[in-house]
Amino acid sequence: MIARYTRDEMGALWSPAARYAAWLQVELAVCEVYARRGRIPSEAVERIRRAARIDARRIDELEATTRHDVVAFLAQLEEAVGADSRFIHLGLTSSDVVDTALALQLQRAADLLLHGLERLRETLRRLALAHKETLMVGRTHGVHAEPTTFGLKAALWHAEAGRNLERLRRAKEAVRVGKISGAVGTFAHVDPDVEEEVCRELGLVPEPVSTQVVQRDRHAEFVGALALLAASLEKIALEIRNLQRTEVLEAEEPFAAGQTG
Amino acid sequence: MIARYTRDEMGALWSPAARYAAWLQVELAVCEVYARRGRIPSEAVERIRRAARIDARRIDELEATTRHDVVAFLAQLEEAVGADSRFIHLGLTSSDVVDTALALQLQRAADLLLHGLERLRETLRRLALAHKETLMVGRTHGVHAEPTTFGLKAALWHAEAGRNLERLRRAKEAVRVGKISGAVGTFAHVDPDVEEEVCRELGLVPEPVSTQVVQRDRHAEFVGALALLAASLEKIALEIRNLQRTEVLEAEEPFAAGQTG
Amino acid sequence: MIARYTRDEMGALWSPAARYAAWLQVELAVCEVYARRGRIPSEAVERIRRAARIDARRIDELEATTRHDVVAFLAQLEEAVGADSRFIHLGLTSSDVVDTALALQLQRAADLLLHGLERLRETLRRLALAHKETLMVGRTHGVHAEPTTFGLKAALWHAEAGRNLERLRRAKEAVRVGKISGAVGTFAHVDPDVEEEVCRELGLVPEPVSTQVVQRDRHAEFVGALALLAASLEKIALEIRNLQRTEVLEAEEPFAAGQTG
Amino acid sequence: MIARYTRDEMGALWSPAARYAAWLQVELAVCEVYARRGRIPSEAVERIRRAARIDARRIDELEATTRHDVVAFLAQLEEAVGADSRFIHLGLTSSDVVDTALALQLQRAADLLLHGLERLRETLRRLALAHKETLMVGRTHGVHAEPTTFGLKAALWHAEAGRNLERLRRAKEAVRVGKISGAVGTFAHVDPDVEEEVCRELGLVPEPVSTQVVQRDRHAEFVGALALLAASLEKIALEIRNLQRTEVLEAEEPFAAGQTG
Repeated sequence: MIARYTRDEMGALWSPAARYAAWLQVELAVCEVYARRGRIPSEAVERIRRAARIDARRIDELEATTRHDVVAFLAQLEEAVGADSRFIHLGLTSSDVVDTALALQLQRAADLLLHGLERLRETLRRLALAHKETLMVGRTHGVHAEPTTFGLKAALWHAEAGRNLERLRRAKEAVRVGKISGAVGTFAHVDPDVEEEVCRELGLVPEPVSTQVVQRDRHAEFVGALALLAASLEKIALEIRNLQRTEVLEAEEPFAAGQTG
Repeated sequence: MIARYTRDEMGALWSPAARYAAWLQVELAVCEVYARRGRIPSEAVERIRRAARIDARRIDELEATTRHDVVAFLAQLEEAVGADSRFIHLGLTSSDVVDTALALQLQRAADLLLHGLERLRETLRRLALAHKETLMVGRTHGVHAEPTTFGLKAALWHAEAGRNLERLRRAKEAVRVGKISGAVGTFAHVDPDVEEEVCRELGLVPEPVSTQVVQRDRHAEFVGALALLAASLEKIALEIRNLQRTEVLEAEEPFAAGQTG
Repeated sequence: MIARYTRDEMGALWSPAARYAAWLQVELAVCEVYARRGRIPSEAVERIRRAARIDARRIDELEATTRHDVVAFLAQLEEAVGADSRFIHLGLTSSDVVDTALALQLQRAADLLLHGLERLRETLRRLALAHKETLMVGRTHGVHAEPTTFGLKAALWHAEAGRNLERLRRAKEAVRVGKISGAVGTFAHVDPDVEEEVCRELGLVPEPVSTQVVQRDRHAEFVGALALLAASLEKIALEIRNLQRTEVLEAEEPFAAGQTG
Repeated sequence: MIARYTRDEMGALWSPAARYAAWLQVELAVCEVYARRGRIPSEAVERIRRAARIDARRIDELEATTRHDVVAFLAQLEEAVGADSRFIHLGLTSSDVVDTALALQLQRAADLLLHGLERLRETLRRLALAHKETLMVGRTHGVHAEPTTFGLKAALWHAEAGRNLERLRRAKEAVRVGKISGAVGTFAHVDPDVEEEVCRELGLVPEPVSTQVVQRDRHAEFVGALALLAASLEKIALEIRNLQRTEVLEAEEPFAAGQTG
């Protein structure tokens, strides 16, 4: 991500450290569930939880040798946790951790976006009402057509923001899916009940059928919803830019003190 | 559309003649609603309905002069209908007709696709059950991993087909939207009640706020759903191709009599 | 191709009939070269040339059974040519014909585009000179900046048209490549010299190394050049649209008699 | 850029610090040329060169107020240089600096890529010769066809690498373009000779006609060449992956000591 165009909150969500933290969250949830079912000792899980520390730099170092990010992550965890690390990652394949953790990150990212979009929609609603009677020129191909109002333009954006909200909420739901089914998704070394319980713990639902990975049509739907949202924002921005052309000047962007361009 | 890769039914839906027929359907629905409200004479609508004939070639001829497709369409209609044509297109702008008719065409196209997709899903369901115990090699990156079953593969495709069905149904709903609000969408020369009644007649709902046109995020959502569906089909096809590699040969495509490649 | 947005000349180039005609041209060139080398009788080639008739409808019929377009094409040719058809397609694989013929079609399509682009560039050159001193407002983000001239705008488009010409000429060259090397491109049943002679005959050069097919990076380069050209035309069109906004009106599109929108 | 998938050298080229350094390089070149022509004092340029220090963090701070990156950059430069800063950026517009500096960065990035690509091509050449006679199965659609050799496959990749080299070299040339023509590109406050001299100094050629900015078809051509290159690499990688399928095993990737997946 280009820092200049990323909000701090969003950037933090996608840092390597945040990624490893989400992996750890998944591993710990699996340990909990195993402990609850008596497969591993509860005290070990307690000790793991206390001792587990993410050291992103050390993981990078280890990955230079292992050439496998999850193996490096587990090796670093072992360094931090010691002998109890033998209770971590039992019956799992790397993608169980990576894909389930990605779902957690996507839920957080979606929440950030939804929050911003709700605020935008509310602003547009107020703008639509305030300018219900603010007459302005309607245009087709930039050429004057019938009169319209600025309120109607804002209402249009408000309605579209509502559709984007709905699409993004659905897309968030589409990726709210974890997968704890082991290599090639056959539950050979882990029980479907474990998957279900881990997912519930993490606020996710289990992928109904998986291969090695959570199926990618889900992520594609998510990215598609983002693309439509971005296109809507660009449409609003372009209209405002056109309304503030020197010859048109039906709108103007505010200037902050000290701003120069 | 490339005829070789288009089903006849789908090709027919998008022919110029089908497009003009959908335009006519919208114009007639508007006339009906006007007649019901006493704005134009019912007998005129009856006469229009009987006399209206689409002549796609004549429309093309007229468009060479008018350089505007809807104007050419209306001119041809006038030639067919005569004096009653003054009751057609009252208070409308071209996009009222074009965009509302597009919604009708998209509903039909979506139905064709949904029907095919439902059949595919059912086939996959049966395949999943029939091969529940058909053991085969699971692979990661093409290299043997744990065993799996062909039934599980089919179940995976079945689940994904279900998600595609849901996305396509939603996308069909997203474009089930008409717009009879006149130039720049302000209802200056047509009543919102007319829009609502015309849309109901046509099985559509009115665009809550429109400009000159139905908003394009709706069509983008539709196209996005098609893209995800196509990607899923390509994924299944690629897997089958890989399973029928000479060295693998866990699957084979049937050959019809006379087929040569 | 959508007829409404396609020039007749370009549409004709890409019709099924034109495609089959290009296939025939390749097959005949191979026959010629074989005859010249004494591999097949010259008189047979003469007879083939006279008798060969493309019947696109019949090919479609045959393809319904063969499920292979080139096989159907060859079968129809056999119907037209009779016993001499045994001298056609010797040592070839389908892609030898299809890909080499595609190169021929692309050369013609490129010529059409280059011709149009050269005329556009010349028009822009004249516009640039005529309006060298036509003062107008320069804008950044639509807001007035320093003055400029319309001639400078046209000169900018002229320079860009020149770059597009160069790119399109190079791309035309990139796809001016034939391939007569048989299945998987190993020349097992056809001689490299035959490939070279056939290509020379057709105004092409041989693909230096091929698989079953001419390599697709060539076509991708061609399509990329078209995309850049289209983006340039859109940029010019958008600027003109902006200049003819009612409030700006520094440019106007001409209206033909009878035109309505 | 995602650090995990970026070479250090390439990452460094595109850091904020490297970007500001390129801006400074352009500003200094302009100062040199002005000094040579007596427009500003040579001693001032000497002092500027010695005192100019990029402080990326300070620039970010200033940009929070100015909301304009180049203005923030110039303000930080002024803090470092003092009164002589009045000789910097004379007659320029921000895009003169930004776009010309981008050309410098792109030249360096292209060199890195060209260097790697040349090495790849050489490797492929050696592979092609070494395996000229290494027989293997040729396949169409994954199904056995005629025999081929591994040398022929490598020769194919070698030829394609050559085309990619040529495309990338041309694309590097397409973006080797600077622009020192002031606001809206009219040379109102800077001389075309200055542009030419600055560009020569920096190893660039002047954009023949510009607006406020260097025209974007150049960058699009560059990105297009990268896309074709990436597609070729993906094609090679996919073929190798297919050759090392367990059932095929005609190729194998090496494993390093300690590597786990």
